[in-house]
Amino acid sequence: MLFQVEMTVMIPADMPAETAAEIKAREKDYAQELQRSGIWRHIWRHAGAYKNTSIFDCRDNQHLHDVLTGLPLFPYMQIDVTPICRHPSSIREDDR
Amino acid sequence: MLFQVEMTVMIPADMPAETAAEIKAREKDYAQELQRSGIWRHIWRHAGAYKNTSIFDCRDNQHLHDVLTGLPLFPYMQIDVTPICRHPSSIREDDR
Amino acid sequence: MLFQVEMTVMIPADMPAETAAEIKAREKDYAQELQRSGIWRHIWRHAGAYKNTSIFDCRDNQHLHDVLTGLPLFPYMQIDVTPICRHPSSIREDDR
Amino acid sequence: MLFQVEMTVMIPADMPAETAAEIKAREKDYAQELQRSGIWRHIWRHAGAYKNTSIFDCRDNQHLHDVLTGLPLFPYMQIDVTPICRHPSSIREDDR
Amino acid sequence: MLFQVEMTVMIPADMPAETAAEIKAREKDYAQELQRSGIWRHIWRHAGAYKNTSIFDCRDNQHLHDVLTGLPLFPYMQIDVTPICRHPSSIREDDR
Amino acid sequence: MLFQVEMTVMIPADMPAETAAEIKAREKDYAQELQRSGIWRHIWRHAGAYKNTSIFDCRDNQHLHDVLTGLPLFPYMQIDVTPICRHPSSIREDDR
Amino acid sequence: MLFQVEMTVMIPADMPAETAAEIKAREKDYAQELQRSGIWRHIWRHAGAYKNTSIFDCRDNQHLHDVLTGLPLFPYMQIDVTPICRHPSSIREDDR
Amino acid sequence: MLFQVEMTVMIPADMPAETAAEIKAREKDYAQELQRSGIWRHIWRHAGAYKNTSIFDCRDNQHLHDVLTGLPLFPYMQIDVTPICRHPSSIREDDR
Amino acid sequence: MLFQVEMTVMIPADMPAETAAEIKAREKDYAQELQRSGIWRHIWRHAGAYKNTSIFDCRDNQHLHDVLTGLPLFPYMQIDVTPICRHPSSIREDDR
Amino acid sequence: MLFQVEMTVMIPADMPAETAAEIKAREKDYAQELQRSGIWRHIWRHAGAYKNTSIFDCRDNQHLHDVLTGLPLFPYMQIDVTPICRHPSSIREDDR
Repeated sequence: MLFQVEMTVMIPADMPAETAAEIKAREKDYAQELQRSGIWRHIWRHAGAYKNTSIFDCRDNQHLHDVLTGLPLFPYMQIDVTPICRHPSSIREDDR
Repeated sequence: MLFQVEMTVMIPADMPAETAAEIKAREKDYAQELQRSGIWRHIWRHAGAYKNTSIFDCRDNQHLHDVLTGLPLFPYMQIDVTPICRHPSSIREDDR
Repeated sequence: MLFQVEMTVMIPADMPAETAAEIKAREKDYAQELQRSGIWRHIWRHAGAYKNTSIFDCRDNQHLHDVLTGLPLFPYMQIDVTPICRHPSSIREDDR
Repeated sequence: MLFQVEMTVMIPADMPAETAAEIKAREKDYAQELQRSGIWRHIWRHAGAYKNTSIFDCRDNQHLHDVLTGLPLFPYMQIDVTPICRHPSSIREDDR
Repeated sequence: MLFQVEMTVMIPADMPAETAAEIKAREKDYAQELQRSGIWRHIWRHAGAYKNTSIFDCRDNQHLHDVLTGLPLFPYMQIDVTPICRHPSSIREDDR
Repeated sequence: MLFQVEMTVMIPADMPAETAAEIKAREKDYAQELQRSGIWRHIWRHAGAYKNTSIFDCRDNQHLHDVLTGLPLFPYMQIDVTPICRHPSSIREDDR
Repeated sequence: MLFQVEMTVMIPADMPAETAAEIKAREKDYAQELQRSGIWRHIWRHAGAYKNTSIFDCRDNQHLHDVLTGLPLFPYMQIDVTPICRHPSSIREDDR
Repeated sequence: MLFQVEMTVMIPADMPAETAAEIKAREKDYAQELQRSGIWRHIWRHAGAYKNTSIFDCRDNQHLHDVLTGLPLFPYMQIDVTPICRHPSSIREDDR
Repeated sequence: MLFQVEMTVMIPADMPAETAAEIKAREKDYAQELQRSGIWRHIWRHAGAYKNTSIFDCRDNQHLHDVLTGLPLFPYMQIDVTPICRHPSSIREDDR
Repeated sequence: MLFQVEMTVMIPADMPAETAAEIKAREKDYAQELQRSGIWRHIWRHAGAYKNTSIFDCRDNQHLHDVLTGLPLFPYMQIDVTPICRHPSSIREDDR
């Protein structure tokens, strides 16, 4: 089941650089692991912003909640969730 | 080059049902032709709304403009465009 | 799987009274049938408004979309959907 | 008498972890006590957010005010209150 | 139990003048009857607008809903409801 | 001359508790003195919020400004002012 | 006593040109009469818009309400009212 | 050439009182000097707020920019600029 | 003197096609004449929208107002005006 | 390919003056280098604000993203991006 998720990252100006770097490294590992498992289907960056649009494929709303709150950057993000489904005009079998 | 496009359809209440059906049929043909050509990469419906999130792959902004204004439903839609690009954490080579 | 759905009804001022009455009667039948089947779990009216807050229990996002777009009043409503899940402080086993 | 209450939790980034944990533990106790007494009827989490939608059953507006301002997390929450009542299409006798 | 209610009147430009006058006359009668019964405690006009702020004293949310939807101008108003209660600094015994 | 005033209190999280208590005590004294003098006619609390709706009776806009900026909590409040006047449907002689 | 008033004119597209011209002529006469009497102190047009910012000098809120609702264009305007007073840094004796 | 400028002052809560007093004193001198020179034509305070509406008469946009960024309080203000011009209904020769 | 102007065109759905075509033809002539005279310096289309961002070079605010209200499409546009000036980092002598 | 970019600078009040000066100096160098290379085509300041409107000419969305995130002031700016293209009424060959 698919969800469109938009994440805007807002790291506090006074976070030490090493702390930020460490969190971002863990975030990247976590994101790539979820991509490899098929849960995080797509991720695109918004041009000119520290923001992304992602497509998640989760078992249900609880699963989505667990995945998102597990993000190392979760405490520093504004997250918008939109439940989506197959479009009747879509010709791609996998976009559902 | 990728763009996230969100389209909300607002067909006037007084449009005759046949006119609406005819426009929607043309919209579907046009959408599927663009999908087959690789320009309209993804389309998902927002659950509970007459709205979609789409990903377009266009040569440039002008190309995107021509594609979107060519939509049979264009006069009846609110359209939001966001230029997107590859995310450094993405493991998919084609999401760019 | 649960969804919070808020529906604001906006019937056009020029709709004939009988048409409105007929649509509302069908809406009520449809709503009660869905409640009896366990899909439409709760519905409350906002005091002083033609608006409700509802809780739906659907199989997935597609199921929710089909249920909501099947509402006789769907063309005359603004609908906001929020995917929800069990709260860790909840003591009710059924609120999930 | 029923109220829909939406609470968004915003704990300051510089609150010590133990302080936060202690407040959350008291919040959970308080929430479960109110649920057992029938005042806090429902609580659902918004998927992907530190936010909930709740239904309270209070004697009057003053009672609701006392219950909400008594929440240990009250100083760290944005709260939206909507007075609700029985929907004429509802088939549940208890949703009032 | 008290509620602050703000009503903005928006009569369609094409409503015949006699119809509007007749609805407004019924609205005034209804408003004054509710004031005499103690339900509609206060009503003030916003300077320069077709809008009022009112204080209602109702038994519960359902009572408020019935009173407001009974307004002859209800279909032509935007209504905002805020549940209020006694302020601890108030010296008036009746403002509760 | 009447004004509707809505005040939302936002005390900084790092204000020492004694300082906050001292300011609130002065605020209450000031509010009750203004109520006794007839300037602060009504004050109601919004259920579930640190916010009030008040009605002031001032000689003119300058008088209102002086009264509001004299509030001990003024630096910590968001204030919205609406000039109001007698409603033609009002049956209360004093609501003007 | 002074008020800042911003008026945005929105004449319906289907109003006959002669009707619009007649209303605007009456509006201009009314505006100039109020300016001569000292009630409508200033009026400036927003560059590129059918909108103005005005300063009114009225006896009280009721007077302002009567003046504004007497505008021939009142039914076709969005009006925003802000009560203003003398600024302590002002060197003009008449701007109060 | 005229501009309507609205300034909302937001002095940080942790600015030392003497610093604030010194900046405000310089602001007042600067404002009065600009008024005497005819550049800052009007200034009115919003009743109940640390905010003003002003009318500036500048040679061009660059001149306005230099005047506003020269305000001692500039770093602590939200400023909204609206270019205005003579209204065809105005009877004052100087309001242009 | 420069102004950034954003225009969103909203032609009513029931305007006859020939009328719309005739207005657009006049708009194009007017726009090109203003470009040739140096008043309308730049015009760009927003990709995917019936909207443009333009730069005007006018003598003063009144001149801008006359130019914009003279647009054949003026009654069908939402217009946003921002006064701009030379940026201190600009290396182009003509962008002022 | 062109993009309209609006940047609002928000430097934290507690940044040391020398740090701010050093960042701004690097920003100016970077901006002028990009202007000389033809990538940053135009930059105008908003009168009365620490904000600019710019036109960028980039190879694609990724190029724009790299250019903008490379700005020394990037962490302290709110940035809005709008993809634009040639307007059919434009007479300038280079505005594309």
